[in-house]
Amino acid sequence: MSNLQNIGEESIALHKKFRGKIEMRGKISIESMRDLTLIYTPGVGTVSKTIAEHPEMADELTWRKNTVAVVSDGSAVLGLGNIGPAAALPVMEGKCAIFKRFADIDAIPIVLSTQDPDEIVNAVKAIAPSFGAIQLEDISGPRCFDIERRLQESLDIPVMHDDQHGTAIVVLAGLLNALTVVNKKMDEIYVVLNGAGAAGVAVARMLLKAGVKNLIACDRQGAIFEGRDDLNEEKKILAVISNQQKKAGSLAEMARGADVLIGVSAAGIFTKEIAQSLAPQSIIFALANPVPEILPEIAEEAGIMILATGRSDFPNQVNNALCYPGLFRGMLDHGIKKVTDDIKLRAAQAVASMVEHPTAEKIIPSIFDEGLVERVASSVQ
Amino acid sequence: MSNLQNIGEESIALHKKFRGKIEMRGKISIESMRDLTLIYTPGVGTVSKTIAEHPEMADELTWRKNTVAVVSDGSAVLGLGNIGPAAALPVMEGKCAIFKRFADIDAIPIVLSTQDPDEIVNAVKAIAPSFGAIQLEDISGPRCFDIERRLQESLDIPVMHDDQHGTAIVVLAGLLNALTVVNKKMDEIYVVLNGAGAAGVAVARMLLKAGVKNLIACDRQGAIFEGRDDLNEEKKILAVISNQQKKAGSLAEMARGADVLIGVSAAGIFTKEIAQSLAPQSIIFALANPVPEILPEIAEEAGIMILATGRSDFPNQVNNALCYPGLFRGMLDHGIKKVTDDIKLRAAQAVASMVEHPTAEKIIPSIFDEGLVERVASSVQ
Repeated sequence: MSNLQNIGEESIALHKKFRGKIEMRGKISIESMRDLTLIYTPGVGTVSKTIAEHPEMADELTWRKNTVAVVSDGSAVLGLGNIGPAAALPVMEGKCAIFKRFADIDAIPIVLSTQDPDEIVNAVKAIAPSFGAIQLEDISGPRCFDIERRLQESLDIPVMHDDQHGTAIVVLAGLLNALTVVNKKMDEIYVVLNGAGAAGVAVARMLLKAGVKNLIACDRQGAIFEGRDDLNEEKKILAVISNQQKKAGSLAEMARGADVLIGVSAAGIFTKEIAQSLAPQSIIFALANPVPEILPEIAEEAGIMILATGRSDFPNQVNNALCYPGLFRGMLDHGIKKVTDDIKLRAAQAVASMVEHPTAEKIIPSIFDEGLVERVASSVQ
Repeated sequence: MSNLQNIGEESIALHKKFRGKIEMRGKISIESMRDLTLIYTPGVGTVSKTIAEHPEMADELTWRKNTVAVVSDGSAVLGLGNIGPAAALPVMEGKCAIFKRFADIDAIPIVLSTQDPDEIVNAVKAIAPSFGAIQLEDISGPRCFDIERRLQESLDIPVMHDDQHGTAIVVLAGLLNALTVVNKKMDEIYVVLNGAGAAGVAVARMLLKAGVKNLIACDRQGAIFEGRDDLNEEKKILAVISNQQKKAGSLAEMARGADVLIGVSAAGIFTKEIAQSLAPQSIIFALANPVPEILPEIAEEAGIMILATGRSDFPNQVNNALCYPGLFRGMLDHGIKKVTDDIKLRAAQAVASMVEHPTAEKIIPSIFDEGLVERVASSVQ
């Protein structure tokens, strides 16, 4: 953890030095009155008039088609919880910096003063004509499901909640390669998912879409099944789509014999005993951040074949940034108006395909791998 | 006009080439996993946590304090009228490019899908935590008055409708210098203002604040006076604050003997006869764009001493860009939360003071004059 503390202190110093991480820049030089007449009045009047007459020309005469609004209400920021808009801003700026660095997308952080779903939907609808796409970010469940659905239905630009789908796509990408390594099939594996928040729901949906037949989700009370009387909205969704046999029991009981154990939960939850009880050649995704559900040394002692975490200092980092820059690049370039399940599946396959020869230590590409963004972008067509 | 047409065509070509005029950029290089851990997780978690505990630190750890949202509903764009959000976007991008070029401010164009005042107010309030200030732009009257007032009352960052106050400040700056040239006094001049929209109301208010005692505003029906039975909301405001003697009559009748004639109206309205009927050593601000209320050659023939227009190819250009970059720079730097009348007066004096030796041909500085932004910025303290 002292390494983490160092990173934190260095990060604070860097943010102070640069006063945040992003800036707006002009693309056209303004050195004379003539320049001003071209980028502003009277020249810009002709540009505005042209768009008023041919609205579709806004895509080639403004920056809009290359922009994404990264929108958060600050209600579920990293592992920090409901810390509000100002404290969420550094995370959104980070996403915007990553958008530009990896996909040359102009992304703008928008943090909101409200956490009311109706007000969030109305605000995003109101500002939508400014942008080519909307990325929702760090909005807590179950509100995030409804907010995303309502926005996607009412807007003609793509809307995606990255905490859900970005995570799910990268987990599926990793699982595709992991199954190659252990020589198991998607429709034959038994998957246990621990953590029933928005990301958990999205991962479950994605895996079922990708062909998984046998999946049980757990929360602190154990297996989630239809009819359990303490289920919130997210868990009711999970109960319906998974655990067809309505099994009940603790996480440890469910995990027994599992081929894949996925945690979107909390530090240290996957004990050595639980890991030892998995099937031979088992796979763990331990995505709690910064401390995963199980550490690599314990997983290895327990005989786990493949471990992926959210950490950059361990092998197999599940990082949303592997997906969203390319995914939005592709949607903007190809005029996609809606993120469908098929698009998400193809994006996962594209991410997976960047690892030519998957091994236990390498089921997930690096964000710095050349061609990643382009491959994900072209997969959405 | 063929020159205008050339500028329009060249402007279209330039916008196409660059696909708009602005871009988002990262300020910190991202070349390694280590860089990523500093600008994004896990490092950014420490930054967010710090702001959650000390909200005021968002000013030094994010880009917020250097940002302005340039917000329009597209209802009154240049002289083009209600052309909607997409067609308004090039104008807003232009303002943002000017903000960066002249004041190093990161400005973001936000065009809205609604023209309902309540919805506009709610949307801007919702996104306000993302920004250090709000510039309202090209929003039609009389809605603009109420929208600006409600936002300023509910937000703790400055909110300014530039079409009103930017114009008014630069007109006052020009008038201050023009009066020096003709050796007349603010509280002794007779001012006739033609055009009773939002800019007209703001100019009238500003001049009265600056000491003008005798001002009559006109619309197409002639002088506006309290009790005239066809007044809309804006004109009722003008009727209350000006024309204390409740004079009635045409623009031509009112203009007779005026020291200052100001047009925020339409091309060619100030005929040679009207101009000839003004007082000796008279001053005209003819701000209709792109074709002013009177052309320089006609004004000269009529014996007008000083003419200012909105045009960059004539002397004495009244350009909002002389004011708003410096004004917002100052408000952001000095933590000003509200644009007061005093701030506007001081900004006008600061703009005026940039012309060391005013002459009939030079009552207004150039936007390229060195030190302009700094002087306006420091005037707001």
